[in-house]
Amino acid sequence: MIKRIGILTSGGDCAGLNAVLRAVVLHATSNKGWEVLGLRQGTAGLMARPVEAELLDPYAMSSVLLRQGGTVLGTTNRGDPFAFPMADGHLLDRSEEVIEGYRQLGLDALIGIGGDGSFRILRRLAQQGGLNLVGIPKTIDNDLGLTEISIGHDTAVWIATEALDRLQPTAASHDRVMVLEVMGRDAGHIALSAGIAGGADAILIPEIPYSMERVAQKIDDIKRQGRNFALVIVAEAVTTEHGEPVTVTHVGGKATYGGIGHYVSDRLATLTGAETRVTVLGHLQRGAPPDPRDRVIAQAFGVHAVDLIDAGKFDRMVAWQNRRVIDVPILEAIERYQAVDPDGTLVQTARGLGISFGD
Amino acid sequence: MIKRIGILTSGGDCAGLNAVLRAVVLHATSNKGWEVLGLRQGTAGLMARPVEAELLDPYAMSSVLLRQGGTVLGTTNRGDPFAFPMADGHLLDRSEEVIEGYRQLGLDALIGIGGDGSFRILRRLAQQGGLNLVGIPKTIDNDLGLTEISIGHDTAVWIATEALDRLQPTAASHDRVMVLEVMGRDAGHIALSAGIAGGADAILIPEIPYSMERVAQKIDDIKRQGRNFALVIVAEAVTTEHGEPVTVTHVGGKATYGGIGHYVSDRLATLTGAETRVTVLGHLQRGAPPDPRDRVIAQAFGVHAVDLIDAGKFDRMVAWQNRRVIDVPILEAIERYQAVDPDGTLVQTARGLGISFGD
Amino acid sequence: MIKRIGILTSGGDCAGLNAVLRAVVLHATSNKGWEVLGLRQGTAGLMARPVEAELLDPYAMSSVLLRQGGTVLGTTNRGDPFAFPMADGHLLDRSEEVIEGYRQLGLDALIGIGGDGSFRILRRLAQQGGLNLVGIPKTIDNDLGLTEISIGHDTAVWIATEALDRLQPTAASHDRVMVLEVMGRDAGHIALSAGIAGGADAILIPEIPYSMERVAQKIDDIKRQGRNFALVIVAEAVTTEHGEPVTVTHVGGKATYGGIGHYVSDRLATLTGAETRVTVLGHLQRGAPPDPRDRVIAQAFGVHAVDLIDAGKFDRMVAWQNRRVIDVPILEAIERYQAVDPDGTLVQTARGLGISFGD
Amino acid sequence: MIKRIGILTSGGDCAGLNAVLRAVVLHATSNKGWEVLGLRQGTAGLMARPVEAELLDPYAMSSVLLRQGGTVLGTTNRGDPFAFPMADGHLLDRSEEVIEGYRQLGLDALIGIGGDGSFRILRRLAQQGGLNLVGIPKTIDNDLGLTEISIGHDTAVWIATEALDRLQPTAASHDRVMVLEVMGRDAGHIALSAGIAGGADAILIPEIPYSMERVAQKIDDIKRQGRNFALVIVAEAVTTEHGEPVTVTHVGGKATYGGIGHYVSDRLATLTGAETRVTVLGHLQRGAPPDPRDRVIAQAFGVHAVDLIDAGKFDRMVAWQNRRVIDVPILEAIERYQAVDPDGTLVQTARGLGISFGD
Repeated sequence: MIKRIGILTSGGDCAGLNAVLRAVVLHATSNKGWEVLGLRQGTAGLMARPVEAELLDPYAMSSVLLRQGGTVLGTTNRGDPFAFPMADGHLLDRSEEVIEGYRQLGLDALIGIGGDGSFRILRRLAQQGGLNLVGIPKTIDNDLGLTEISIGHDTAVWIATEALDRLQPTAASHDRVMVLEVMGRDAGHIALSAGIAGGADAILIPEIPYSMERVAQKIDDIKRQGRNFALVIVAEAVTTEHGEPVTVTHVGGKATYGGIGHYVSDRLATLTGAETRVTVLGHLQRGAPPDPRDRVIAQAFGVHAVDLIDAGKFDRMVAWQNRRVIDVPILEAIERYQAVDPDGTLVQTARGLGISFGD
Repeated sequence: MIKRIGILTSGGDCAGLNAVLRAVVLHATSNKGWEVLGLRQGTAGLMARPVEAELLDPYAMSSVLLRQGGTVLGTTNRGDPFAFPMADGHLLDRSEEVIEGYRQLGLDALIGIGGDGSFRILRRLAQQGGLNLVGIPKTIDNDLGLTEISIGHDTAVWIATEALDRLQPTAASHDRVMVLEVMGRDAGHIALSAGIAGGADAILIPEIPYSMERVAQKIDDIKRQGRNFALVIVAEAVTTEHGEPVTVTHVGGKATYGGIGHYVSDRLATLTGAETRVTVLGHLQRGAPPDPRDRVIAQAFGVHAVDLIDAGKFDRMVAWQNRRVIDVPILEAIERYQAVDPDGTLVQTARGLGISFGD
Repeated sequence: MIKRIGILTSGGDCAGLNAVLRAVVLHATSNKGWEVLGLRQGTAGLMARPVEAELLDPYAMSSVLLRQGGTVLGTTNRGDPFAFPMADGHLLDRSEEVIEGYRQLGLDALIGIGGDGSFRILRRLAQQGGLNLVGIPKTIDNDLGLTEISIGHDTAVWIATEALDRLQPTAASHDRVMVLEVMGRDAGHIALSAGIAGGADAILIPEIPYSMERVAQKIDDIKRQGRNFALVIVAEAVTTEHGEPVTVTHVGGKATYGGIGHYVSDRLATLTGAETRVTVLGHLQRGAPPDPRDRVIAQAFGVHAVDLIDAGKFDRMVAWQNRRVIDVPILEAIERYQAVDPDGTLVQTARGLGISFGD
Repeated sequence: MIKRIGILTSGGDCAGLNAVLRAVVLHATSNKGWEVLGLRQGTAGLMARPVEAELLDPYAMSSVLLRQGGTVLGTTNRGDPFAFPMADGHLLDRSEEVIEGYRQLGLDALIGIGGDGSFRILRRLAQQGGLNLVGIPKTIDNDLGLTEISIGHDTAVWIATEALDRLQPTAASHDRVMVLEVMGRDAGHIALSAGIAGGADAILIPEIPYSMERVAQKIDDIKRQGRNFALVIVAEAVTTEHGEPVTVTHVGGKATYGGIGHYVSDRLATLTGAETRVTVLGHLQRGAPPDPRDRVIAQAFGVHAVDLIDAGKFDRMVAWQNRRVIDVPILEAIERYQAVDPDGTLVQTARGLGISFGD
């Protein structure tokens, strides 16, 4: 018999997290009569003493939350509880503290909103401590398996598309090749969708090996056809043609910059003689107001996750397939990593439009 | 052996039509070597003499088109060619003129972008005249079967959600109940999705019979819980509780206004004593710049439609299912009308959030 | 010696009110060491017993407020305290109760955010009760004198312009004349600025008498030049050509609709034979997120209003002139009503662009 | 007697240029009966042989242009005609070729849209060749004198504000200090206005010397007050505290990156121990769709510039003062460089809000 559940957000923030939170609280409290505790900063809130958690009031779940990026709970920043970085530099297994936090709060179940990395940790905690875990998929990269879409991706694509929309006029005015570097730690979904939506001429993603000469060739073709500018979008995970990660320049202590966008820009300038400019979109992709689709899916996931708990179905992740929410084993979703399919609809679409992948 | 194809847009305009056009032209000309003729104003362009069509130049298919609402071809306005309204008021079967137009242009195939009404007419023309027809689904109402999404719907949901986002602060400032009437001639998909995304308190759709008293009850409940405002979204196709269409007021000759939004607003004011205001979103839902999802799907549909023609597969409609473009018989898509499923994921989600359907 | 001030929002809500509030609280508490009391629902909060006011915490003045339309204080809805509508229908002078509320709270000064109507009432209260009043101009109509801009106007122009941007593609796709009715109770500033920004073909404002025939003539000219659509924007205060207010249709008790937009649409349909459609923007103009200019001016006004109180300068309104905040007598701002100047820069600009005023 | 005029855009592109173009063409052709020639790529079009110019058709000046960033004419990229970089690296005075181009086209006057650098060159050409020059001020930096606003600035502030709006939620979710680097080659107007509008905690501009320790102190104060994140905005022209320009890292031939944003981010990380992240907004500030204010002012400038030519008033620049377009000597506008006034309204506003300038 469920009486009290916890909810946490884990990993990089994205658009739609607050919408999940609102849906869980409204459904769990008003319809099920449970208490919902919001855990601060992912597993860190459960590790802290006193445990950092607050009882969430359904009447405070204003619709304003639907429009707010980020997560009002904060997210896990400080590290993996199984290898937690201590002040002296050592890594310590603090998993039992997290599990103990769950027990101190008297939780009957835990909703974890995260991506594959977070789910691996949360599952391990659940198995070790007997936690009743339900997962909600969130990753702007959209690389989790078994779900058509994860929370945050649609908004990230929107921001990246908007960036191409804004770069095109200035590219055309100045006869430039604009290179846009977008997020995508391993998968190129953002670059691919935004590239198609925003009219890119070349899309570089980690799933398709490329040659810079072929990209340069595309730029030259465009020029020959009388167009004076081009747009190139590249996922941050892309390496050099030789498979080397692009060396990141450190100027000070921690901050890092440079990266594949600059590399592509420099190489294209050299190969084509064109004037190139690079824009690194970075954190702007995370904090924007959630678009309607992210809000709808987030709330559908939140409601369904509560129903899963009510049905006693744990170690499962909610997922979106063919206009419906279903649920799948978390493990399977993690293991079926969802990279861009080089033979899939969107790559075919891009090729049909004459977009180059540099291959 | 295909050499020349035509393309037309039919029915109400929506976001994404120009993106389809661009994709078809780029793929058909650059990759297949065909000519693409843009037909003016749907079937009217084929009926006109001389036929109103223009050869579409791939180099003119700027990415700027991706961001433009509406259709640069114009859309069918003047009527069904099988019962065409003549100047004297009679209806004339002019279908042979349309078919003759297709032949005059030497078309090998025709891509029709439309909804169920347009597809019925286009299929009849195709059967009568031996036209090679491929359909691309477009309807902001998203009521075509066998495809998760039709072009224009996602952007319409975005506009309707944005409207709720803008009405909420003014509702809260003035202690008001705001009623938003959105499009949806028969299906309530826009109202349902936007209502969930925008934090509506009640959603009225034609698929779920309602009682105004129950909606009023919801408003009263909200008030009792200490919230001083409410948001109600209603699809234009909704009738009175008694199943009567809301009488539309005519002031002059043609313009019409009033409608279900005003009816709901008036009734709620009477039943709850609250100050109510109505907003009819109307044409603002059609012409907005396509959002990225509409652009991606539109272009995927355009490329695949060309491939269908190349494969000699006619009388088929492209469709979106589980992240992929497939194709289905046009007839089947028309016949499997896709209303909101009262037991489906989104209705369940809304109920979980405490949103009232007035039932 | 100031120790405690009150702040209220009065009249119709608009974008930027929360930004004023935040600026006043931050400057007054952190830099001056005062307490700031937020009064609920304008003068109604001071009339209520117990008085409805809350001490505003500077640490709660998150930057999120900058992006929120409306006013978190609520605004005056219930009526003029000098002629307050009682339950039995009588009007009662309750001004002394408001003044007494001010005294009960121990306020040393009052910041009123309002338009001309609100300022008239607030000044009368101030004179009668010895209140130390400072005014901040807010009106989406921008009709207050002595200030280039009032809070809320810029955002309203943005929303109205965006509406024209969205109506243009659908107008062009369907060969239509689109009529957009925007706010502007007496002055046509929104219609004028948005009409210029959004590419309207005709602008109807109360300051310039018009003939519908001349507007129809403009539509005909456009058609003759080969353009198949037109955009008309009209301020809600515009009357028929004969100076009669457009009869508003009442369907139920309170809700009203129809209006000048529908009238113009009907008449143009009759005169030109064109297909016309009308959109009434209504409340969407109020609640949108404040644009940057409204936020900057709102905060500049808020800081300066606090400085005025600190300097003991009362019965004055902050104003924006030539990139600077100044202050002027409230009375003078009210009396110098700022209608559109028919010979001013923007009307000349519109005429230069070939936009018709129907004159 | 004017019969034919030319128009060119010069220097960096920005929002609103196409709106000027449209206004000039509509007013000059329809109302004055002149021809307008659009010159390609600033002075380069006049230097080319044959001269690169096209007769602009008023019927092609669609309102779609109002919504498009950049300039359809292209802008000066290749260099100063008085010191033009030749293929062999030498600089050549090619001013006479430009003047000869003006004569070949039979121009009676020239409208130049530019900033101070462009105006210096255009005036020199005008004086040397007897060109009838009228200037329209355009600079996203808003640093031209005698005009409250130049074209492009308002939109750039909007983009920069939107970026802060998007960075705030992700900053709050991850306990981060976000540093946003915006344009502003010499003046800090964008950083100042966007910083106020977007709720920045610190604003660094070239007009106000700063100490990094004081900025770090502000971050520490915020932390002590219980807020876990901060936003810092910095103009690209800002140097290190010691007045040294930040060394830009070159990786390849031409592309450059790093800069003051990264410097500030690194230094703050070191001084405060906070996790910092930097975003360089770059070209996204230029190409966005013009906001309504830029469109209104652009068109007012365009119409007035035509009127100036008609009145035979040359060597003058149109300007915006107190809601009106006036005209001033170009020379004076250049010489009265308009930096941020450290004692002006906006700096005072920022200080009132508790924003640190690091001084």
